Amino acid sequence: MTASISPLAPKKQPVLPPIDGVRIATAEAGIKYKGRTDLMVMAFAPGTQVAGVLTRSKCPSAPVDFCRENLPGGKAGILVVNSGNANAFTGRKGRESVNLTAAAAAKAAGCDTGEVYVASTGVIGEPLEAGRFAHLLEQLARDAEADRWEAAGKAIMTTDTYPKYATATVAMGDGEVTINGIAKGAGMIAPDMATMLSFLATDAPVDAAVLRQLLSAGTKKTFNAITVDSDTSTSDTLLIFATGAAEKRGIARITEASDPRLTPFRRALNRVLKNLALQVVRDGEGARKEVEITVSGAKSARSAKRIALSIANSPLVKTAVAGEDANWGRVVMAVGKAGEPADRDRLAIHFGDFRVAHEGERDPGYSEQAVSAYMKGDKIRIGVDLGIGRGRATVWTCDLTKEYVAINGDYRS
Amino acid sequence: MTASISPLAPKKQPVLPPIDGVRIATAEAGIKYKGRTDLMVMAFAPGTQVAGVLTRSKCPSAPVDFCRENLPGGKAGILVVNSGNANAFTGRKGRESVNLTAAAAAKAAGCDTGEVYVASTGVIGEPLEAGRFAHLLEQLARDAEADRWEAAGKAIMTTDTYPKYATATVAMGDGEVTINGIAKGAGMIAPDMATMLSFLATDAPVDAAVLRQLLSAGTKKTFNAITVDSDTSTSDTLLIFATGAAEKRGIARITEASDPRLTPFRRALNRVLKNLALQVVRDGEGARKEVEITVSGAKSARSAKRIALSIANSPLVKTAVAGEDANWGRVVMAVGKAGEPADRDRLAIHFGDFRVAHEGERDPGYSEQAVSAYMKGDKIRIGVDLGIGRGRATVWTCDLTKEYVAINGDYRS
Repeated sequence: MTASISPLAPKKQPVLPPIDGVRIATAEAGIKYKGRTDLMVMAFAPGTQVAGVLTRSKCPSAPVDFCRENLPGGKAGILVVNSGNANAFTGRKGRESVNLTAAAAAKAAGCDTGEVYVASTGVIGEPLEAGRFAHLLEQLARDAEADRWEAAGKAIMTTDTYPKYATATVAMGDGEVTINGIAKGAGMIAPDMATMLSFLATDAPVDAAVLRQLLSAGTKKTFNAITVDSDTSTSDTLLIFATGAAEKRGIARITEASDPRLTPFRRALNRVLKNLALQVVRDGEGARKEVEITVSGAKSARSAKRIALSIANSPLVKTAVAGEDANWGRVVMAVGKAGEPADRDRLAIHFGDFRVAHEGERDPGYSEQAVSAYMKGDKIRIGVDLGIGRGRATVWTCDLTKEYVAINGDYRS
Repeated sequence: MTASISPLAPKKQPVLPPIDGVRIATAEAGIKYKGRTDLMVMAFAPGTQVAGVLTRSKCPSAPVDFCRENLPGGKAGILVVNSGNANAFTGRKGRESVNLTAAAAAKAAGCDTGEVYVASTGVIGEPLEAGRFAHLLEQLARDAEADRWEAAGKAIMTTDTYPKYATATVAMGDGEVTINGIAKGAGMIAPDMATMLSFLATDAPVDAAVLRQLLSAGTKKTFNAITVDSDTSTSDTLLIFATGAAEKRGIARITEASDPRLTPFRRALNRVLKNLALQVVRDGEGARKEVEITVSGAKSARSAKRIALSIANSPLVKTAVAGEDANWGRVVMAVGKAGEPADRDRLAIHFGDFRVAHEGERDPGYSEQAVSAYMKGDKIRIGVDLGIGRGRATVWTCDLTKEYVAINGDYRS
């Protein structure tokens, strides 16, 4: 199960600066892995605000249930993340395990359990024995330090082939604030499905209500626009923590989403979200190519996104990309099966800048040779114009290779 | 691209008896293949009734459009099917090609073009030159003979690894009638997607309106309950022709779906449909295992079917089956992502007769060894009980293997 690093991994990873008000610690708790960290704690300064986006799965993990309950409160004292066990489909034991973790974490951070956030990733269906690490939390919260983002990114990995980091520093009013983010991808861990987790933190003084709006808008075109295999995890969790420490440097608190000082922050946040989301796709299981799919001319943006996801999730399209085959017939099929308004006779399809189909027919002008050369690249753009409206959406996925089947079809050990 | 015969192929194929009122002819028209038949004509006795089910794709092929227009008429004189070219996404040329074929076929059969049915399967996006075979139709219709079902099944194949036949003879009133059926599967033909086609014929004297009801009900639990890779074709076509020849033997015409004489016929038709549908699944690309998924205890039958299809289309579930891994965590995931009402804490999951999860937790009683032995079989049953209602549905699929990726990811030649 040891995969070599994805060929789509970033050549260079950024170094994340400390965020005032965030302290981090990691440990080897031995939850499943040996000889690596699998427990990560982020302790937040008093007054830290939080917002989050959680899986829409109807069978969510116990930690997801717990976070969903606490998020409306908008306050965070501590985040506890473990890898190696997802604590999903673990019934009453799973809830007890979360409660035990939360109680220990609250004590360690000196906060209420309503200000604790937990996330777990790894095996499904195995009871997570919180007793094995809950006693470590007090020490970890005490020893936590600001300059530990690199370690945080590594501790939350499962079968990711590289840790995922992004950072941005932008103007806010007369000062500057920083946003850091880490993520782990939709990798697998034998024998069960892992999940997508991402945690962001900023020193910007932004209220939870505003964070919620920013995150909801920002994920629509980033984390909610990526797919590896259409299989929504039981555990997907994205949280953003705003410590507000920049207030000390004279940046007044932002309490309204309409505040004009938010504009650069919003852009930077969206960049960080997109950067992390694409890193997740580029580390998709067995991925050899990143695929960007843009649908335009649809009835609505919603309709465009549905069609784009239908293309992105089509095994026939994904295997064609793996085979470096500009197979636009399969793109037509995927448009047709989406069930959204479309007019076959107005459809145009591009691979990169090459128009291969036009007005419902193969484009007689395209050079098969040039398109074939394009398909050999590791970043493939597919463009579909429906020609019936102004709706537009872009989604990202990766190709479907034999390695995907090998990774996920291996015998359970 | 030459695949060996699927290990799931039937050990023995039935010999289809002649159907009074149906004459068949095949030819090597050289549309794409060399050295094999690729054109099939069925000529029907006057008064033959027809009903059909067509793809729901929003980008259907030209032949699908043509059949959709004729089906409300309910009368059939001739069916023309070609393999090697799907005549899909071929724009104006595609429509002209169908019109040319229909005109030649109507002349050959001495019927109206409103009584002609056409189906094409093979490459997408290549103009189909009807001129290459339309002139053959007159001779074929003249030479057609009743005893040619075996040849018919072979002529419509694309990358199927075996032809698909089913037949049943049942009582109708005081006599007997026969139903024959052939099908071709969701195979691929380089460089593009092929399609699912199935044609049934019977000598039973059943009106088109009644056939429509029977077919609509019958496909719900057969052809519309199978999936290979979730990719709906542009060309899926299922037609049933009732020559009514049995009227000569004293069986009075059936004009109402409530006619009690229909009961054995309906059952036999459903058996034939299910038999053919399962043969399609068992010849799915790269398939090594047939997978039957039954969801019970759902809010409604509709909800049960959605959840069953979510499981059947999950790449993670399908690769787990390929790996002979009773990975119920992925089944939980697929239930959760379906978006249908479900209560994690009431969920029970079976592989074969082995209950692996119960009341939202791993079943502590199950023997990993026994389940692993079960997973080595070539027919896997997955049962999911939601415990919240009485809705129930069964769907069928196959596993997702490296061969699937190889077949569909090969470079375009």
